[in-house]
Amino acid sequence: MDLTRDTVGQWLDRPAVRNFIIGVILFNAVVLGVETSDTIMAHAGGLVVTLDRLCLTIFVIEIGAKIYARGLRFFRDGWSLFDFLIVGVALIPAAQGLSVLRALRILRLLRVISVAPALRRVVEGFVNALPGMGSVFLLMGMIFYISSVMATKLFAQAFPDWFGTLGLSAYSLFQIMTLESWSMGIVRPVMEVYPHAWLFFVPFIMITTFAVVNLLVGLIVNSMQEAHSAEEIEQTETYRDEVLERLKRIEADLGQMHRRDG
Amino acid sequence: MDLTRDTVGQWLDRPAVRNFIIGVILFNAVVLGVETSDTIMAHAGGLVVTLDRLCLTIFVIEIGAKIYARGLRFFRDGWSLFDFLIVGVALIPAAQGLSVLRALRILRLLRVISVAPALRRVVEGFVNALPGMGSVFLLMGMIFYISSVMATKLFAQAFPDWFGTLGLSAYSLFQIMTLESWSMGIVRPVMEVYPHAWLFFVPFIMITTFAVVNLLVGLIVNSMQEAHSAEEIEQTETYRDEVLERLKRIEADLGQMHRRDG
Amino acid sequence: MDLTRDTVGQWLDRPAVRNFIIGVILFNAVVLGVETSDTIMAHAGGLVVTLDRLCLTIFVIEIGAKIYARGLRFFRDGWSLFDFLIVGVALIPAAQGLSVLRALRILRLLRVISVAPALRRVVEGFVNALPGMGSVFLLMGMIFYISSVMATKLFAQAFPDWFGTLGLSAYSLFQIMTLESWSMGIVRPVMEVYPHAWLFFVPFIMITTFAVVNLLVGLIVNSMQEAHSAEEIEQTETYRDEVLERLKRIEADLGQMHRRDG
Amino acid sequence: MDLTRDTVGQWLDRPAVRNFIIGVILFNAVVLGVETSDTIMAHAGGLVVTLDRLCLTIFVIEIGAKIYARGLRFFRDGWSLFDFLIVGVALIPAAQGLSVLRALRILRLLRVISVAPALRRVVEGFVNALPGMGSVFLLMGMIFYISSVMATKLFAQAFPDWFGTLGLSAYSLFQIMTLESWSMGIVRPVMEVYPHAWLFFVPFIMITTFAVVNLLVGLIVNSMQEAHSAEEIEQTETYRDEVLERLKRIEADLGQMHRRDG
Repeated sequence: MDLTRDTVGQWLDRPAVRNFIIGVILFNAVVLGVETSDTIMAHAGGLVVTLDRLCLTIFVIEIGAKIYARGLRFFRDGWSLFDFLIVGVALIPAAQGLSVLRALRILRLLRVISVAPALRRVVEGFVNALPGMGSVFLLMGMIFYISSVMATKLFAQAFPDWFGTLGLSAYSLFQIMTLESWSMGIVRPVMEVYPHAWLFFVPFIMITTFAVVNLLVGLIVNSMQEAHSAEEIEQTETYRDEVLERLKRIEADLGQMHRRDG
Repeated sequence: MDLTRDTVGQWLDRPAVRNFIIGVILFNAVVLGVETSDTIMAHAGGLVVTLDRLCLTIFVIEIGAKIYARGLRFFRDGWSLFDFLIVGVALIPAAQGLSVLRALRILRLLRVISVAPALRRVVEGFVNALPGMGSVFLLMGMIFYISSVMATKLFAQAFPDWFGTLGLSAYSLFQIMTLESWSMGIVRPVMEVYPHAWLFFVPFIMITTFAVVNLLVGLIVNSMQEAHSAEEIEQTETYRDEVLERLKRIEADLGQMHRRDG
Repeated sequence: MDLTRDTVGQWLDRPAVRNFIIGVILFNAVVLGVETSDTIMAHAGGLVVTLDRLCLTIFVIEIGAKIYARGLRFFRDGWSLFDFLIVGVALIPAAQGLSVLRALRILRLLRVISVAPALRRVVEGFVNALPGMGSVFLLMGMIFYISSVMATKLFAQAFPDWFGTLGLSAYSLFQIMTLESWSMGIVRPVMEVYPHAWLFFVPFIMITTFAVVNLLVGLIVNSMQEAHSAEEIEQTETYRDEVLERLKRIEADLGQMHRRDG
Repeated sequence: MDLTRDTVGQWLDRPAVRNFIIGVILFNAVVLGVETSDTIMAHAGGLVVTLDRLCLTIFVIEIGAKIYARGLRFFRDGWSLFDFLIVGVALIPAAQGLSVLRALRILRLLRVISVAPALRRVVEGFVNALPGMGSVFLLMGMIFYISSVMATKLFAQAFPDWFGTLGLSAYSLFQIMTLESWSMGIVRPVMEVYPHAWLFFVPFIMITTFAVVNLLVGLIVNSMQEAHSAEEIEQTETYRDEVLERLKRIEADLGQMHRRDG
């Protein structure tokens, strides 16, 4: 059997192999979903665990083969690294109590994204939109840090559960930014102790909401221009160049006739 | 009386018949609304039920006539099928306790959409917008499935009412995505048992909100381009073609004069 | 003194008179605001009531003069009618208990809109945007009627406070559409009696939210095109017409030279 | 040592000095964050306070140097004034109980905005968007004033905590506008006393929401046009001018040939 890097690489790129891997990913997602049912686990827990191990084994072999075929190039591709980390998480020996690591196994379903081009494009669209919003995110971060420090200084003593530490304040302010129970749940009780607390919270809501709206507007304008440009703009430019070119030639022709006639 | 397929089809397309059907639909909607009033039903319940049966009879005759006139073509048209199902629901013998089926009768009012062109266009606009958002919907579905499995694994034992099964988790996460009582109602109680639960819920809120925003942005950009294109783009192209055509003819003319003069 | 219709009309259009009326409107708004303070009313209630009566008298004289100057034309202008109704409300003898009519007096501040052109334009922009959304509003109305009838049929017996009548159901569904306490406050309690109630409420939320989003998208696309078109489009058309005109003339010239030379 | 205005001004503009100031701002923000931790303050409170004083001293020297270098021009620049006020707040002798002034010290982190051009641009973008929305803001203010007066008149007696004074009503209406607990928390209890209260609150929600949506739409359309115009429009105009110019010259040429030939 010929197992050079090239043949393994070609074998991995075959549609049949790709579809098989997608199938295993989806099957594994169902298995992990079934694992949440206590009744099924009581009757066929062994089978479910075995099927999950089988899927994991297939993933480990697939990724091992990919690393063998591509060598270090494997680790330079963002999506490959993403696959590697998601599968790798499952191999960490989950000591007792680390049920979080077990829960992370379902993240393997995200591998579908790296395999299906349509989903990949949507996610890449999301990720590409992020840097353009960097400044607004930085600003939001600053507003949150400033507001958290102020809220902790002002309200920590009277409301230690909500504003006791920087972290608690940041969480409470995030809740207030999402407008969830901000008044009945948080600000009205606070105002019973500090009647002027609304001077802090109402501007906070207005500023963060306005910043979020600006993020949204920025996103819309950006996608608009991207959708608009590329092809259409090029077409317009080609047309304009041709018109000017032809007009120049006509003028030159006329100039020549002129000179000759003159 | 001449009752061939064609004459029945023509009779159904008459404005008077159409308007009569719209009238019956609206009258039926009022009758079903009146049926919710206990006082009226106590005094004139028999009349209300009779009127509803009368409307239903008219619908059955109308749809029967349509099927007779169009034959199997009837079942190939989406809107006809829609009418057929909505009216058909009322004919299922509603056994005791199946009050749900009785409640579905009011859906007949939706038949107005299939008859009024303006409403039809709006609904078709909605439906046409859906496929373009297919990838984002698929992604949202994946995020929900993954999050539901994780939430069930992590919080089922301590909060069986909210995260006991996959279904309960999906419902609770939908509630959290709509930002309803997410913090005061769900996440703060959960954090009293699992202090790091915000590491799961805050990113979930951010990711799903961002996905919804992207759906919105996509919708806006799409409708923008559709509104923009069609007519306007065609007009521009006709204009450009004419300009280039005329420029070419002028050049050719000049070239001819050149050659003759030369 | 010359009090013909024309002189009165001219006098009403004078900037000084207009500004005086705006001043009275704003002063009246302050007076009505002051009236809400029990302390001030206890000490200077008589003065406040007198000042309000004075403002009202001025308005009545102004509108009387307008009707005298313009005759029946007064009642054909939307904004004039708006002024007439707002001031007229205050003249209805408010019997005891009709505190609502007294509360409506503050609506007089809205008269500023009909006097200030910048505000007038914004409101007219709002109002003009409405007809374009007629179909979507009609559809929303239908969805609300259908959902109210269904909710009343299904949940009236178990939850008479929320879904007892069509009106109560419509109010509760409006609350659910705004996502306020929809789950913790309404749907979770309902699901304890009818476990499948989410099959009604979750689609209701999705459909109404989607319809609202489509309203928003429609509004954006409309204002976009309006902002875009008018001037710019006309400019483009003038340019295109001129280019084609000149090209035709050049061709004609060349054709003439051709024929003569030939 | 040469300390003329010019040399001090040049020294302040040096990249090294600028970066040092940014470093001090960020370090100060961390120090003020640390100050919120009771444990750290108990062990190293003196050090933290000293470091904060040190940062303040550096800011005072920097701003003093700027005022020396630029003279009165310093106070004409918005961003300089912003720095001056933020630092100046910390110098007010904070009497006991004025913990608010101490909390305001964290606002110094905002100085990063005035120093970092990218953030400055975002904030200037926000601020520049405001005047275009002036009319809508004015309208919103009017709606709030009118609604507050009406709510106070109607509901003050029965619900003094929510609508007792103009201020309380405005706060409650702001909460209702953000849709927070508007129904379960406020309107349903009010409707138990005044069953028709929804006639006031539901239109209030619809009007304010519609106004906010229009603000959003206005913002999007504005940024769209700004992004669109500038460069692109100029390019189109240059092109059009050139085409018309060349066409005129060709016509003139042909006219001349005509006359000569004729």
